[in-house]
Amino acid sequence: MSELRKDPVIERWVIIATERNLKPNDFDHQLEIRKKGPCVFCEGMEMHTPEEIFSVRDSGTSPNQPGWRVRVVPNKFPALRLEETFVHSVERNHETLSGLGAHEVIIETPDHYLELTDLPEKQIYEVLLAYRERMRDLKKDTRLRYCVIFKNQGVMAGASIQHAHSQIIAIPVVPKRVKEELQGADAYFQKNNRCIFCDILQQDKKEAKRIITQNDHFISFIPYASRFPYEIWILPFEHSAHFIEIGNEALLCLAELLKQVLLAVKKALNNPPYNLILHVAPYLQTGEEGYNQSFHWHIEVLPSLTKVAGFEWGTGFYINPVIPEEAVEILRKTVSFQK
Amino acid sequence: MSELRKDPVIERWVIIATERNLKPNDFDHQLEIRKKGPCVFCEGMEMHTPEEIFSVRDSGTSPNQPGWRVRVVPNKFPALRLEETFVHSVERNHETLSGLGAHEVIIETPDHYLELTDLPEKQIYEVLLAYRERMRDLKKDTRLRYCVIFKNQGVMAGASIQHAHSQIIAIPVVPKRVKEELQGADAYFQKNNRCIFCDILQQDKKEAKRIITQNDHFISFIPYASRFPYEIWILPFEHSAHFIEIGNEALLCLAELLKQVLLAVKKALNNPPYNLILHVAPYLQTGEEGYNQSFHWHIEVLPSLTKVAGFEWGTGFYINPVIPEEAVEILRKTVSFQK
Repeated sequence: MSELRKDPVIERWVIIATERNLKPNDFDHQLEIRKKGPCVFCEGMEMHTPEEIFSVRDSGTSPNQPGWRVRVVPNKFPALRLEETFVHSVERNHETLSGLGAHEVIIETPDHYLELTDLPEKQIYEVLLAYRERMRDLKKDTRLRYCVIFKNQGVMAGASIQHAHSQIIAIPVVPKRVKEELQGADAYFQKNNRCIFCDILQQDKKEAKRIITQNDHFISFIPYASRFPYEIWILPFEHSAHFIEIGNEALLCLAELLKQVLLAVKKALNNPPYNLILHVAPYLQTGEEGYNQSFHWHIEVLPSLTKVAGFEWGTGFYINPVIPEEAVEILRKTVSFQK
Repeated sequence: MSELRKDPVIERWVIIATERNLKPNDFDHQLEIRKKGPCVFCEGMEMHTPEEIFSVRDSGTSPNQPGWRVRVVPNKFPALRLEETFVHSVERNHETLSGLGAHEVIIETPDHYLELTDLPEKQIYEVLLAYRERMRDLKKDTRLRYCVIFKNQGVMAGASIQHAHSQIIAIPVVPKRVKEELQGADAYFQKNNRCIFCDILQQDKKEAKRIITQNDHFISFIPYASRFPYEIWILPFEHSAHFIEIGNEALLCLAELLKQVLLAVKKALNNPPYNLILHVAPYLQTGEEGYNQSFHWHIEVLPSLTKVAGFEWGTGFYINPVIPEEAVEILRKTVSFQK
């Protein structure tokens, strides 16, 4: 018997459709064939990318030379550029902004044939360190209001280059989806004087029905009203609206948990394409209070097993053909097996 | 030089990314191989579907027998059922509704090998007639607040059965995406005392830069802030919030224009997968004024040429790699060639 479940933060109902009750093997996504290297993101090919902005590299090696483990470069085909000036125009119903913003690529490994999950925890930590450092640095450009970091794994999830990488886009406006989340969280805070994410975390921990795994700093679970089969949220236990505030110890814990969770997804679901998105509050200007108390940064991992189709486009609701509590069982077993 | 454009109805910015400036042949979606018929939706296979709810059929033929041209049946694996009772429960952050609703399939032709665009206008008219009649009939069930009709064409756009069909889902709540549109339109109406869609239509008609084709009752254009390459909107000239009010003459005009537009998409873009969604106002209860003045029903056609990826999931914004004014040139030429 299907049921509708409501996301408590944003007003989104999800139909948990039990009629088909799909199992992991029912999702027959295409396995990708890895093209032969080297590519422009490989070690030794540094001259083929724009000049690097940040890297984690062996001491004694120079920028734009081999010897790096993580490397951040501007996107060669950027959607936005920092060189643009801010121009805002309105002509009746047509509102336009110049293409001001940042669009960068975080190359996660010099090795063409490795995926993020193949890297040792220490190297995943360095990737996350690059996330934090770039987010901190872009904050200095006060024209930018929001920074999103995401990873598209696999062609079906939107990746155009196979070599393991993430992307950063920073923009001069707070995006629609972020505003919805901020407003939902803020309304809850005004009413209850508590962070909604902290409450979700407590409720899920108490019920213990949707938790995949946890460690000293982080918890991963399948949300009650998940849009997609095997959708995963990762939350820090400690309340914080801004990922840029994370300390190195917590970052190491995040690397550990992220590896466990992504490896479980890979094994349980036959290496599916997925999107990983870092949800944070907007950049604060000096003196602004913002959403410090009501928002709680987190990571969403969205495996691409079903298609977003007419119903989703028309309603903003989703049909999820896998019961979250059953999906979690499968991932939890896979994580335990790894340990 | 990229630019950001804002949808005037809902607060959504779109990045029109000109760096790559993709041409129709740059989108290499997989062409689908049509599986051999007959399938459960074919003429002569009526016993394999649930009993029909509505059909357009030759006089003298009986329900659930051959002789039909359009046939509506309940979905065999429904996401929702009308037999459910309405149950609403809240347990802290977990809000749940029983799976009450309707989920029907509109089989557009008895012929396994024809697509909607292969049908003569008269038969497309009968498909649209089925849309209207089912929407009118479901309105009688006062538990239902909203009815969405959509078509997923191609596996990549979410179709699980190849035989040409559309789907109807009616639900007891007004969906998130619809609320956003209604609220955006209502805010505009409160401020300007005019329908925003009527204004968009006038502005686009005057500029004549994004119109694909039009006839006595309908206009089709590529929106200024389109999310997707070759995204198309079809609007009736006459203001109306409810598709159920459409008359037969206008329905014929819609069939004519829809065929032209979908055929242009098919030819110009090598038969891409797409979603087609009918955007209407919620069902009105007796005496309700609703969004009669501010909302304007319309059809959105969304070709699946790009992937919704991390950036879109994280922000609710979109990156569109084709300039709308260039996309329209291509479709307009293809339409003229047909005529």
